[in-house]
Amino acid sequence: MSVYVALLHYPVYNRNGHVVCSAITNLDIHDIARAARTYGVSGFYVITPLEEQRLLLDRLLRHWREGYGAHSNPDRKAALELVTVVASLPEAVALITREVGTEPDLWGTGATTAGPSLSYHEARERLHQGRPTVILFGTAWGLSSEVLRLATYLLPPIRGATSYNHLSVRGAAAVILDRLLGQSP
Amino acid sequence: MSVYVALLHYPVYNRNGHVVCSAITNLDIHDIARAARTYGVSGFYVITPLEEQRLLLDRLLRHWREGYGAHSNPDRKAALELVTVVASLPEAVALITREVGTEPDLWGTGATTAGPSLSYHEARERLHQGRPTVILFGTAWGLSSEVLRLATYLLPPIRGATSYNHLSVRGAAAVILDRLLGQSP
Repeated sequence: MSVYVALLHYPVYNRNGHVVCSAITNLDIHDIARAARTYGVSGFYVITPLEEQRLLLDRLLRHWREGYGAHSNPDRKAALELVTVVASLPEAVALITREVGTEPDLWGTGATTAGPSLSYHEARERLHQGRPTVILFGTAWGLSSEVLRLATYLLPPIRGATSYNHLSVRGAAAVILDRLLGQSP
Repeated sequence: MSVYVALLHYPVYNRNGHVVCSAITNLDIHDIARAARTYGVSGFYVITPLEEQRLLLDRLLRHWREGYGAHSNPDRKAALELVTVVASLPEAVALITREVGTEPDLWGTGATTAGPSLSYHEARERLHQGRPTVILFGTAWGLSSEVLRLATYLLPPIRGATSYNHLSVRGAAAVILDRLLGQSP
C-alpha cells in the first residue's frame, strides 16, 4: 500500500466561512505522525505557505529526529520521521509522484463533505489494491471547496450516535486511518 | 446505552514503569469531550487526586460552559458539558452508580493490556445491550496494573498495519469510541 496523509493549514475555512491560513499546532503534528506510523502510512505532509512556520516546524522536527528527543524518545522519532514540511499541496503531490512513479489519488475529508464519495468499506478495498493515495485533512474549520474540488473522492463525515460531529482534526485523522487501515480483533 | 468515559491521571505509569500522577493536558479534555459528544457518551470523568489541578480544570470548564467561550463556541460548550472532575475512580463509579441505578462495568484500555478481554465486536454488542459501562483511559504511559485489575474486561490494544502502537490517549480514545459506537457508511 502507498497511503499518504496531508495536513493543510491553507486554504482552510475559519469559523465564519472565510478562507484563511491557520497556525501550525504542535500536537497535531505529533498526534497525526503517531497515528500515521501506527497504521503504516508511507508519509505525512504538513502544508503551510508561511515560511516562518515551516522553519519553526523543521526546527522542532530536528529536535525529535536528531537532537535530544531522538535519544530520549525513539518511538516519537520513528513517528516524526514520516513528516515532510512543504509550502503547498501541488508540492506534496509532486514529491509523492516522484516517489511512487505515478500521480496519487487525493481523497478529501471533512465534517460536511458533499461530492463523489466512497464508503469506508470501498475506500479500504481500494487502498488494499495498492493505488497510491493521499488523504487530505484540513485544520481550523476544514478544507476549502477549492481543495475539495481537486479530490478524486471524498470520504464520508465521521458519524457517531448523534448529529454532533466536531472531532478535532487529530481525532478525525486517527479514526479515519483506523477505519481504512486498522485491524480490529 | 449508558456509556461513560474516564481519563485517569493517577495511578498511571511513567516511561520508567513507575506509578505517577500526571498533569492534566488541556487538549486531552477538549478532544476526548468532543469525541464523547460525537459518539453519544453519557459522561466524561476526568480523574486526578491533585486538588489544584481539579480547581484549575473547573475554572477552564466554566469559561467554556458559562463564560465567554459558551457564547463564542456553543459546540465546544456542548462537548465540555459532559465533563465532571473528580478525585478518584471510586468517586466516579459512585456518581455513575447513583445516576444509572446499578454499578457499571469497568473496561480497561492500553497499548499492552493482558487479561480477560472482549473483541471489539463483542464489546460493541454488549454496549448495545445496554449494560452501563465506563471505559477507562490512562494518561502518560498508561493505566497501572492496580487499575486494570479492577476492570471487568480489557479492550484489545489498537493495532494498525504495524507493531508500532503509540497513539496519543486522545487518538486512542477517538478510535476506540468509533469502533464501539461509530456508524461507518
